[in-house]
Amino acid sequence: MARAVLFGSPVSPGIAIGRVRFMHKLQQDEERRITPSEVEAEQAALRLAAEDVRASLQTTMENVPEDLAEYRDVIAAQMEMARDAKLLNATLARIEQKLIAAPWALRLTVEELCALFRGMDDPYLRDRAQDIRAVGLRLRERLFADPTETPGSAEPAVLVAEDLSPADVMELNLDCVLGILTTEGGPTSHTAILSRSLHIPCLSGVTGLVSVARENELVIIDGLGGSVLLEPDEADLARYEARRLEYTGWEELTLLTARWPAEMCDGVRVVVQANLESNEELAAIPRSGADGVGLYRTEFAYLKGRLPDEEELLAEYSVVAQKISPERVVFRTLDVGADKMLHAQAALKEPNPALGLRGIRFCLRHQGLFRTQLRALMRAGVHGNVAIMLPMVSGLDEVQQVRRIIQEMHQELTAQNLPHAPVLPLGVMIETPAAALICDALARECDFFSIGTNDLIHYIMGIDRNNRHVAYLNEPLHPAVVRSLKHIVDAAHREGIGVSVCGELASDPLGMALLLGMGVDTISAAPRFVPGLKHLIRQLSAETCMELAHSVLLSTDVAASRRMVREQLHQSLGPELAFHTTSLLTHSQP
Amino acid sequence: MARAVLFGSPVSPGIAIGRVRFMHKLQQDEERRITPSEVEAEQAALRLAAEDVRASLQTTMENVPEDLAEYRDVIAAQMEMARDAKLLNATLARIEQKLIAAPWALRLTVEELCALFRGMDDPYLRDRAQDIRAVGLRLRERLFADPTETPGSAEPAVLVAEDLSPADVMELNLDCVLGILTTEGGPTSHTAILSRSLHIPCLSGVTGLVSVARENELVIIDGLGGSVLLEPDEADLARYEARRLEYTGWEELTLLTARWPAEMCDGVRVVVQANLESNEELAAIPRSGADGVGLYRTEFAYLKGRLPDEEELLAEYSVVAQKISPERVVFRTLDVGADKMLHAQAALKEPNPALGLRGIRFCLRHQGLFRTQLRALMRAGVHGNVAIMLPMVSGLDEVQQVRRIIQEMHQELTAQNLPHAPVLPLGVMIETPAAALICDALARECDFFSIGTNDLIHYIMGIDRNNRHVAYLNEPLHPAVVRSLKHIVDAAHREGIGVSVCGELASDPLGMALLLGMGVDTISAAPRFVPGLKHLIRQLSAETCMELAHSVLLSTDVAASRRMVREQLHQSLGPELAFHTTSLLTHSQP
Repeated sequence: MARAVLFGSPVSPGIAIGRVRFMHKLQQDEERRITPSEVEAEQAALRLAAEDVRASLQTTMENVPEDLAEYRDVIAAQMEMARDAKLLNATLARIEQKLIAAPWALRLTVEELCALFRGMDDPYLRDRAQDIRAVGLRLRERLFADPTETPGSAEPAVLVAEDLSPADVMELNLDCVLGILTTEGGPTSHTAILSRSLHIPCLSGVTGLVSVARENELVIIDGLGGSVLLEPDEADLARYEARRLEYTGWEELTLLTARWPAEMCDGVRVVVQANLESNEELAAIPRSGADGVGLYRTEFAYLKGRLPDEEELLAEYSVVAQKISPERVVFRTLDVGADKMLHAQAALKEPNPALGLRGIRFCLRHQGLFRTQLRALMRAGVHGNVAIMLPMVSGLDEVQQVRRIIQEMHQELTAQNLPHAPVLPLGVMIETPAAALICDALARECDFFSIGTNDLIHYIMGIDRNNRHVAYLNEPLHPAVVRSLKHIVDAAHREGIGVSVCGELASDPLGMALLLGMGVDTISAAPRFVPGLKHLIRQLSAETCMELAHSVLLSTDVAASRRMVREQLHQSLGPELAFHTTSLLTHSQP
Repeated sequence: MARAVLFGSPVSPGIAIGRVRFMHKLQQDEERRITPSEVEAEQAALRLAAEDVRASLQTTMENVPEDLAEYRDVIAAQMEMARDAKLLNATLARIEQKLIAAPWALRLTVEELCALFRGMDDPYLRDRAQDIRAVGLRLRERLFADPTETPGSAEPAVLVAEDLSPADVMELNLDCVLGILTTEGGPTSHTAILSRSLHIPCLSGVTGLVSVARENELVIIDGLGGSVLLEPDEADLARYEARRLEYTGWEELTLLTARWPAEMCDGVRVVVQANLESNEELAAIPRSGADGVGLYRTEFAYLKGRLPDEEELLAEYSVVAQKISPERVVFRTLDVGADKMLHAQAALKEPNPALGLRGIRFCLRHQGLFRTQLRALMRAGVHGNVAIMLPMVSGLDEVQQVRRIIQEMHQELTAQNLPHAPVLPLGVMIETPAAALICDALARECDFFSIGTNDLIHYIMGIDRNNRHVAYLNEPLHPAVVRSLKHIVDAAHREGIGVSVCGELASDPLGMALLLGMGVDTISAAPRFVPGLKHLIRQLSAETCMELAHSVLLSTDVAASRRMVREQLHQSLGPELAFHTTSLLTHSQP
């Protein structure tokens, strides 16, 4: 029996066995009072730590690999914070006035500054709270550091942290990281995305971790089931070591067969594409075996301090189009809420941003910005197989307006003698209930559908994706959801257009089987999951999937549907199922 | 030609012609600097004004009529503010330090305190900003008041204000108020609700009003079309006086015939019920001719500083049930978002409260509070014809859970020997897309449906009701909306249960015709609109309505649908249509 078992969200699959290394040397006994004679020493320690942090950030900055260049801005922001007089001076003053040790004084200052930034109107400044916190953690770590220890010289270990910033990850000697456990973050955090692309098992949201785990104790991360075993016994170790070998073997197999077509036992071919967060993940595409990119998110370029110009966007999009050619890349046009824009003229305070000026609504309101993006996409169109996809559509007129703008851009570009693709395939994300309800009419106006199952489920159920109090209503097997999905697929096929799914449901083996059973043509998932999903498709038959979908569609009892799907797929797939993370297997109503 | 025409939301219908009286003597020239020798006089003026305001609030408090007793708390809160040393002392100090006149100093203090309160975590304290603002306006008015003028002695006039607090309205000599114009507020503000129930024409949200209108100039309020004419000419006056007489005549006619049944020309009977905000509107029911109450909102009792106990709720519900008996009262159970609760243990900060722990979700989470309300409703059930309606339902299991709780409450109440109705009709609001999509299954689990068209439209379209940037997507004729409405009515009728509509669409003559054409059985609207809607129903035929609904359902072109509905109803109803306010007639896409 292990000493304790904790649970978290499996954000990067796999099994890891190793010793705990606290990333930021979190200490429980830091609330130490000092005497006046100790003040000077504590202040000196803090100044020294600040020097160290600045120097190490500088080194990290210089060594950022070219394909992760996007993270430089984040590191630069932290360097600015480390240099900031407020943080340092306020802490120095606090040590003297309150007679407390540097780590305690530092924590109080960080909390104060974070609260200050979080209360700010400007979303850019608000997000700086995160940088202050990251720098605070680094300073704290240096304050506790053993001067004889060289960073990076450690044995391979399991990293434990509240959260990791991109700079933290860059500094790691990756050969020494067996797995990552964090108390914060979620499936879309930097830590999650990086650990997935680096094939490092990772759990996030592991509650209680920091107070329960001990430096250097042995742990097992089950990045498939979502648990951590602290101080496992011999039996645990044997079991998980066997499982780790099984999983690694299976993963190697899926990678070896990644480029084989995804053809079901009864000959039906499925297209499996990749979702990309930004071009930093491009390198992962070839070995994933993805049949092109089903969703390329274009937000990254817009979330800096200024708007990108047409040439910058053209450069980014052309590289992606070229690398993926002759396969298709579906670029989703800018999908931000007004609340996320860093630019004063566009930023709005919305009491319910999820129901606000987002996606295509935002773009049609700020047409200058949108036209620049469309021009860049049309010009990139000559370098590969480019398609355009519109997010957050709720009516026919939105698609018609975009078609008119594209026509105008074509005339402009022609007049300017700039090479471009005059007509690109135009699709819409089906993610509002309105779009789902009028998909028959939408299917006549566009060239393809992509179902954003995450948002679609949230809007149908009337829940916020980030609100844990209503997370229990996030139920892909709810009859309202499955009926909508089927309705969308049927409407698309009646008009002869294809349907892809790029939401999380597509990477869940049970969800994928259900979607294929409803007739979905294309599955799009993070590159990391593509080889496994293709392998899985080869074990399934279209007939089984159709029967499954049929039974789920007839049921209004969600619990019964879940049981049925699970049993049916266990029968078809057996132990293979255990190598996938699936929320449909474990999800339960409160 | 009038000097200027301004536009606003018609929140209480009718025509008013009269001279402008600024409610709070808004002055443009108040930023006056003073010399040190004037300080004492300005401070004395402020102290005197504060005395006056306290005294007049006290008088108002004592004279609050019994049926508006709910507003006493609001007035009490303002008295507390007027007594508050912070407001007064800070202003006195400011006069001396900055050498500025009292009104200017007062405004600065009010702004400062409002900002302070608005930044508070506690929603109760946050709402106090409103009271400070109201008291500030009163003080300012006294500072500018002509001492020879007795309040209330004025000639009949059109009141102009930024906004009116309930206390302001109580103090008015209502015989002297011809109409009300405000720059703030909306259809659900206190001003709107009170002016409707007092039959005073009122426009809210009249932008530019305060800077353009002049004290004592003649204006015409068109509370049907939503416009204000400043300094109208003779032709305007003649036209609007004729229109006013026509409207008054029509209104008298509808009131005289209010109790006649609402039967369409071809004999189909429609049930027309009233929506009540709280029991303060009970008195309006008999002469409205409403066939009972289709929506009784129960939130009022919960929005004070503490939770109501069972006996308080029982007293409120019993009075309502008794007064309306033998007609039915449909009580909607507590429909608040977690963000609205004043109680620390329940209050949550939600980034998207409209997609959060609201309505039945909140009640099932806080079952103690919910059980108290259900017990009060079951006990009130012996005093009249009581039904229970659940808001924000998204799944079958929510209805099943409530049925189980009601069964438990029945056993408890029986054991305690408390008289109660063991079984009350149980209905659900259809207002989430999920509920609309599974209404066939929901219809088998409950006794009636009520469609909350406001929220249903917002969730289908993915928009926030209060976000003006996406208000253009609030489109009842959107094919996604009309299809859902038809689907809900058909599903209910297949299971033999009735469907009522209690959203704004039901009070719009075009919307009502459309709903009746789809087969909706019951219309529920503010008491003020019931006589007019019943009169209108008598001019319509079920056949016309059905044809109308049929054509709208076949169209995917919203603009064409709107044109068609408008033309068709102009044909059937002629000039009568002009006596109703309708957003469907005037609404247009951006």
